[in-house]
Amino acid sequence: MMEAFVTTYAVIGAGAVGGFYGAKLAQGGSDVHFLFRDHAHHVRTSGLDVRSVDGDFVLEDLSTHEEWSTLPEVDVVIVAVKSTANEDVAPRIPAILRPGGAVLLIQNGLGSEPLFAEALDGQGEVIGGLAFINSERTGRNQVTHMGNGGLTIASYLPDYVAAGITDWMRAIAADFEMTSVPVQLQEDLVLARWMKLLWNIPYNGLSVLLQASTAEIMNDPQSTELVEAIMAEVIAAAASDGRELPAGLAELMLDATRKMKPYATSMKVDFDKNRPLEVEAIVGEPLRRGQGHGTPMPVIETLYRALCFTNARITSS
Amino acid sequence: MMEAFVTTYAVIGAGAVGGFYGAKLAQGGSDVHFLFRDHAHHVRTSGLDVRSVDGDFVLEDLSTHEEWSTLPEVDVVIVAVKSTANEDVAPRIPAILRPGGAVLLIQNGLGSEPLFAEALDGQGEVIGGLAFINSERTGRNQVTHMGNGGLTIASYLPDYVAAGITDWMRAIAADFEMTSVPVQLQEDLVLARWMKLLWNIPYNGLSVLLQASTAEIMNDPQSTELVEAIMAEVIAAAASDGRELPAGLAELMLDATRKMKPYATSMKVDFDKNRPLEVEAIVGEPLRRGQGHGTPMPVIETLYRALCFTNARITSS
Repeated sequence: MMEAFVTTYAVIGAGAVGGFYGAKLAQGGSDVHFLFRDHAHHVRTSGLDVRSVDGDFVLEDLSTHEEWSTLPEVDVVIVAVKSTANEDVAPRIPAILRPGGAVLLIQNGLGSEPLFAEALDGQGEVIGGLAFINSERTGRNQVTHMGNGGLTIASYLPDYVAAGITDWMRAIAADFEMTSVPVQLQEDLVLARWMKLLWNIPYNGLSVLLQASTAEIMNDPQSTELVEAIMAEVIAAAASDGRELPAGLAELMLDATRKMKPYATSMKVDFDKNRPLEVEAIVGEPLRRGQGHGTPMPVIETLYRALCFTNARITSS
Repeated sequence: MMEAFVTTYAVIGAGAVGGFYGAKLAQGGSDVHFLFRDHAHHVRTSGLDVRSVDGDFVLEDLSTHEEWSTLPEVDVVIVAVKSTANEDVAPRIPAILRPGGAVLLIQNGLGSEPLFAEALDGQGEVIGGLAFINSERTGRNQVTHMGNGGLTIASYLPDYVAAGITDWMRAIAADFEMTSVPVQLQEDLVLARWMKLLWNIPYNGLSVLLQASTAEIMNDPQSTELVEAIMAEVIAAAASDGRELPAGLAELMLDATRKMKPYATSMKVDFDKNRPLEVEAIVGEPLRRGQGHGTPMPVIETLYRALCFTNARITSS
């Protein structure tokens, strides 16, 4: 890839996460095409309204699409749907990605990348993205960004072998540099994913199981013990997967969460809206990966089964 | 004790369980005195109305009391309050029990007996009772009995050493024989308690954790796996406590529960009424006893901590 290369983007799943990052790229001058399931027309006529702690703005004259079929072929497809929709989305990517392009999956959990790599069949790079953002979709054409916003990206190789820093990663980071979104390039996608799972498994899982905010979880000694027990299992699972998590990371996260405002995790928000829970990506896949390496994970397995029960109730209703 | 001995009873906690068994004893001709917290006057004037699958009846001219102070001294005190009230109840027993009498604790879980033995200080026998009954308090002076009703009783010795069959156990069984309540005499209280815990820990615990009936729990493969994992830990804990549970008992209970009508456990009923949960008697004490013998119980410990969180929310509200 040459420096003069102009990257074009499509954003699939233009909600709280995809809507924000897509809007920032467009604000920075990138050529971005949005797939909206429902409100394409409204966004086209009213613009995409971003209320952000970093400054409000409205993007007008966006390229918005209601159908996959009208999207142009692009260099990079950003997928920011819930992982529960991946089986539907992955097979549609090759039709809109130029050969040699890249898919950037901005999703929670573990295990999404292989599905997209399979769909691409070698015709493009798969990059995992971890969003450290606090944002919400607050209207038909509105996203509200309440804090943070950094993006960590790392390229995927089969079985999550560390892929190093690729040209596509640098190109995407360069485009985000035109905006106020800090992008971290990681050589090892699965290490980055385990680090995020260290927070996501306990807090997403327990917030649904206990029907509690992060603050309620940290204000009770018993649920705090559960968080710590789950974190210890994540650390052991990551270690058995060849990834040593930074020393003190668990304590850092416990402290930071203790100091945070009461926060509803993404899984709790999904639960409250009676939407399918990302149980497999956030809990099931890490569990199977750790247990596959022989790591005992009884607390996470208990959590997983309870969440499967709750999710089955939601999806069958 | 001579055969001609006429046993007098007091019933503390005349709700779904104590109200039923006390009424049956009175129906059979025993001299029974009831402590009602709220509705003593109403029961005195309207009678105690028992709607039972074994036949409805109304008991009139009962000896009902609003205060401990008016209760006469009796031979046997039946305690059928929730175990969460034990700390309040136990110290009051010596004042109403004739020396050499017996306390019959009809309660769930493990660990209540030592408290009462301590309060009696050798001046009476403590007998544990396990109610296999499906009953509800359905009005100020009404108890509805929907099925079963058997009582298993066993005498308590320090540290739950098997006490054999005592005279008091035979006397109580004889009085219940005058009615239609089948009483089983057990030599080993803690074996009987572990057997009941094999059902109570998974179903009481999961019914609150998952907000589900027994039928919902058994209709989902993941929650069924949780039941089985918990049962396996109970069996191991009992074994480490020197009690081998009968082979096939877990499968028997799973089958029976699968065939039962959808049922709200006592802990789920307490939860729904925002009453304190019997977490310690049903889950905490067996957990500590098993872990004290070195048995790993990670699933029950996870369940315990989650229930403690939920219970703290109830008791602090």
